[in-house]
Amino acid sequence: MWVCIAVCVYKLTFSGSRFAPLVVLELASDTKEEAITWLLSRIRDRQQNGGAELLVEQLGPGIGVKEKENPNMFLVGASMQRLLCGAEDLGLFKECTDGSMRAFTFASKHNFKDFKGDGDSFLSMAECQYVIKHELDTLRAKEETNVPGYSHAKLYPGKSIIRRLLSKGILIQMFPLHEKEELKRLSFSWYKKVKLSLQPLDDIRHYYGEGQALYFGFLEYFTFALVPMALIGVPYYLFDWEDYDKYVVFAVFNLVWCTVILELWKRRSASLAYYWGTLCRKKAFEEPRPGFHGVLGHNPVTGRAEPIYPTSKRHLRVYLVSLPFVLLCLYLSLYVMMIYFLMEGWALSIYDENPTFWTHILLFIPSIIYAVVIEAMNLIYRYAAEFLTEWENHRLESSYQNHLVLKVLVFNFFSCFASLFYIAFVMQDMELLRQSLATLLITSQILNQFMEAFLPYWLQRRRNKKMIRKVQKRRMYEEKELPLVEQVRLEADMSTYLGTFDDYLELFLLFGYVSLFSCVFPLAAVLVVLNNITEVYSDAFKMCRVFKRPFADPAANIGVWQLAFEAMSVIAVVTNCALIGMSPQVRSYFPESETQLILCTVAAEHVLLGFKFILTFLIQDVPKHIQDKLARLEFESLEALKKKVKSDSALTFFTLLPLSKLLPVL
Amino acid sequence: MWVCIAVCVYKLTFSGSRFAPLVVLELASDTKEEAITWLLSRIRDRQQNGGAELLVEQLGPGIGVKEKENPNMFLVGASMQRLLCGAEDLGLFKECTDGSMRAFTFASKHNFKDFKGDGDSFLSMAECQYVIKHELDTLRAKEETNVPGYSHAKLYPGKSIIRRLLSKGILIQMFPLHEKEELKRLSFSWYKKVKLSLQPLDDIRHYYGEGQALYFGFLEYFTFALVPMALIGVPYYLFDWEDYDKYVVFAVFNLVWCTVILELWKRRSASLAYYWGTLCRKKAFEEPRPGFHGVLGHNPVTGRAEPIYPTSKRHLRVYLVSLPFVLLCLYLSLYVMMIYFLMEGWALSIYDENPTFWTHILLFIPSIIYAVVIEAMNLIYRYAAEFLTEWENHRLESSYQNHLVLKVLVFNFFSCFASLFYIAFVMQDMELLRQSLATLLITSQILNQFMEAFLPYWLQRRRNKKMIRKVQKRRMYEEKELPLVEQVRLEADMSTYLGTFDDYLELFLLFGYVSLFSCVFPLAAVLVVLNNITEVYSDAFKMCRVFKRPFADPAANIGVWQLAFEAMSVIAVVTNCALIGMSPQVRSYFPESETQLILCTVAAEHVLLGFKFILTFLIQDVPKHIQDKLARLEFESLEALKKKVKSDSALTFFTLLPLSKLLPVL
Repeated sequence: MWVCIAVCVYKLTFSGSRFAPLVVLELASDTKEEAITWLLSRIRDRQQNGGAELLVEQLGPGIGVKEKENPNMFLVGASMQRLLCGAEDLGLFKECTDGSMRAFTFASKHNFKDFKGDGDSFLSMAECQYVIKHELDTLRAKEETNVPGYSHAKLYPGKSIIRRLLSKGILIQMFPLHEKEELKRLSFSWYKKVKLSLQPLDDIRHYYGEGQALYFGFLEYFTFALVPMALIGVPYYLFDWEDYDKYVVFAVFNLVWCTVILELWKRRSASLAYYWGTLCRKKAFEEPRPGFHGVLGHNPVTGRAEPIYPTSKRHLRVYLVSLPFVLLCLYLSLYVMMIYFLMEGWALSIYDENPTFWTHILLFIPSIIYAVVIEAMNLIYRYAAEFLTEWENHRLESSYQNHLVLKVLVFNFFSCFASLFYIAFVMQDMELLRQSLATLLITSQILNQFMEAFLPYWLQRRRNKKMIRKVQKRRMYEEKELPLVEQVRLEADMSTYLGTFDDYLELFLLFGYVSLFSCVFPLAAVLVVLNNITEVYSDAFKMCRVFKRPFADPAANIGVWQLAFEAMSVIAVVTNCALIGMSPQVRSYFPESETQLILCTVAAEHVLLGFKFILTFLIQDVPKHIQDKLARLEFESLEALKKKVKSDSALTFFTLLPLSKLLPVL
Repeated sequence: MWVCIAVCVYKLTFSGSRFAPLVVLELASDTKEEAITWLLSRIRDRQQNGGAELLVEQLGPGIGVKEKENPNMFLVGASMQRLLCGAEDLGLFKECTDGSMRAFTFASKHNFKDFKGDGDSFLSMAECQYVIKHELDTLRAKEETNVPGYSHAKLYPGKSIIRRLLSKGILIQMFPLHEKEELKRLSFSWYKKVKLSLQPLDDIRHYYGEGQALYFGFLEYFTFALVPMALIGVPYYLFDWEDYDKYVVFAVFNLVWCTVILELWKRRSASLAYYWGTLCRKKAFEEPRPGFHGVLGHNPVTGRAEPIYPTSKRHLRVYLVSLPFVLLCLYLSLYVMMIYFLMEGWALSIYDENPTFWTHILLFIPSIIYAVVIEAMNLIYRYAAEFLTEWENHRLESSYQNHLVLKVLVFNFFSCFASLFYIAFVMQDMELLRQSLATLLITSQILNQFMEAFLPYWLQRRRNKKMIRKVQKRRMYEEKELPLVEQVRLEADMSTYLGTFDDYLELFLLFGYVSLFSCVFPLAAVLVVLNNITEVYSDAFKMCRVFKRPFADPAANIGVWQLAFEAMSVIAVVTNCALIGMSPQVRSYFPESETQLILCTVAAEHVLLGFKFILTFLIQDVPKHIQDKLARLEFESLEALKKKVKSDSALTFFTLLPLSKLLPVL
């Protein structure tokens, strides 16, 4: 049953004006009237006067319990003309009639492929919402020194009003609305039918924007890329091929394959981003984050007034506080791991001494304690990392994200793989390594998908039950669709999607399981492929049913994750070479000299690393036909500039010529 | 005495017109009259008619023996207005009055700092010559199907005329003229006085262009960067500090230092390139090389007719022919080295058996034979590499250069360092390694500077003696300066400077001597510093006195050489760790277990490599203040675009509004 989340784009009629609501602004319920009036007037004001020139209406009361509802919810929309101008401001790239991608301009609108009539369906709803978000974000204070009614919410000329309202808690949230019909179609083709076809990436991009679509594209690509490794891994597992040659062949294949798939992904991502128009789009100058603070000064690039915080101070905080803290946490996590292994040995010795039912149960206790402690540590560390990164006071959201990702990544890598490394290289127990890998892979996957999609869905369902039931009652009498007002309130209560961070992190750890110890446990790829298939469904379900619609994020690539995956594949070369060097089959080849064995292993590792580097260099990051198209765009703009220059200078000649003829004496 | 090479910029009067000659075109002496007439008319023709709109005059006869002179030499110049327009076409960046760097446009010429009056001294002579070269290079065929009088010199619409003439041997050479006064000043401040000041990089750039200046900048930077290593190395050498701790400290310092100086060079190079205006200059679309051939087709980027050669075919040639050939040559050079060591052992055994004067001389024979064979192999290989790279049929000069550099680099690396590697890691004779390093460093430097500057200078001096003597006779009667005609002919006979390739190669090998075995021979840095100081003088002398003036090359960095130096510094980590691991002092720390020793060495190596990578990542390639300036430029162009868009759409509104008012029924 598909009931409640999506909202159809109604024409609002309840307050006289008619427009398609795109974005919801939720102000605190105790916001002062003067602040609201001021904000709405700034949003509605004409662009010439520094306003956003958008349409905005207050949301009417729902059918729910009145006293509990927040009255300060506002729907924002815009005329199609305004949206198209906004798209031009943003420099959105669209497909032209000749198949190339160009920056949209209003003047040349009829050169674009999908522009028909007034251009009503030219921009997708996600794009319209992104335009509105951008216009609201760049709505700047003029002479106001503070938000009316809030003397502590300081403003200065050029400060983004929305960001100040957000950082002061006056604006609770701003989110785009779902589109019921489209979401229904998308979810049907995406996860509702079990099929062998690919994901509808273009539709996902159309509905959720490029960042989301790239994640799902990567997930799909990654799954397919692992299929050869899975296929080769199965006979290794089934027939227990453990002789030296096949072992080495499998590991070398894996290492080369990992490098190749990561490089080819860059090409695929460039292709996708090109056709989605984000590859060559120039990013606007990034605004400081809402939480960024400092002494008011002037930005050296834009010349606008904005807080200035010295980079050297930030560096001190990063290198003298955050870095030692992260290292301390890593040390702590290693320490906890050592205690776990001690406890395990202790439990085992007790069981060996006195094998009863109770001591048998005791055997499981250390693992359970360790799992709980690790989960708790991950959670605490995540909060600490967020706090520290916030405190580092990064100017840009992107650099905040990078620092946070790096911190969390390193810790998660340690807490996931440290015990495996210990088993592999200190205990050198390959059988235990294989078991731990299998256990970790299977349990973490099941747990993850449960925690990430079904639990939030179930919680939310319970929360909304009352309202849905009430609305459904009404619905039977009046109309089939939920009224807009109820939908907006339902969506406002949904959880906020916090970005693709956790999804990528999960993939990253899976990639680690597959690549780091691939030559010990060839079945890992099979398990990861199976997991990824269910992951597609659970992630799709999560996006469509559990979360608020996120704003589109015009990403051109998967960013810092590409680097993280590449780093993992380098570490994989080292671990696999070491594992092969340690295997008894290989040792038996060098019976007389361990030195020889180690030197050979190290030499092989260096050759593989060198080969990997050369491969990375040889495979071009952008496919040739896309390179040509980008070059063509560049070439055309240079030629256009030249022509402009020529006609300008011709004009200059013309204006100079008569003068010199008039004044021949000079 | 400073006599003969430079030519002052005379105003030509001998054929009626007056212009400053900038570039010389030398056609074959038997060129048909109709081809000359056609070429001159195309060069003089107005730009609207597809000409280059330049001034060109035939060079008059000299005083030399008439029958031996080539009559087909032409001087090319242009009006200042034409040069300024050409500079705008090229997108030259110049400093504005507000200190920022902007692309020069004729319309905004008065915003530029050095623009005074008609702008006579705004462009340096090197820039003027570069503009003329560009205009000649982009002089394209219209309807001509071949060069008049030469049915085999095919042309098609859009083909560069000059490149066709060059590839068919009708145009022998095209070179810019020296400027006597400026060269005199430059050479005085550059190498004529022994001083402690820095090189006049800005003057070098002004006279020779950015590529040359970057080379000399790098040479200077590299020398200064080695000073700390040299200073630390001296006490190691003097006091024979061979204990473990100091050894390791020195090696680690060297490795970190190498990484840091290479990273800092990127910053310095970015600074230099920014203030020279090449950092943000957009490169025009590159033309195919003169030697490029293929089936006539259409370029997918420009749409122009040009030869097309399938990339797959080129890849086949590179991977199936060139790569095996290079590997074969490397194998051959290793083989020759092995024969050398065999011969050396054999000579030593004969001397040991029967130590007479003659057998003592026999000891030197293998080294001499090896040195001669290596030189011969290098020479033959260089020709083979050039032939192969030509045969690979690269479309662009830059990709031709990259492939050639790579081939020559790898072979030179092998032939220079293979014997040292053999001594270090197979023979493990550190004393011999130290001796060989010292011998190689000192002899190769002396030989190099002799071969590269003084020999060509001496040869050329002899060649020109007759003419100079004759001219000097005349000179005593008439005037102090050599007449222009003689100067042009003198310069035409000078050797052609083949680019910075060999100079960088020399530095690259020196860097190898310093970094690869730094912990064995701490004095290497001292020798290299001393060498570099003389190298500056010999290179400067060579540029000013031996060679024709080269065309300026607007480089923004040292290109592929940055990569080569970085690769060398990675190899250096491996070799230094191995050398330290092999030293008896370190071995004595692990008396019981060789395995432990190797594992520790490998671990240290990996940690160093990881640290190096992180360091590379942390040190930003472009200094913050330059980044800000680049961002400001970008921001301004985006803002300007937005404003343009706004005013355009305002215009659209105005044109739409009256229409809708006139036709209210619609």
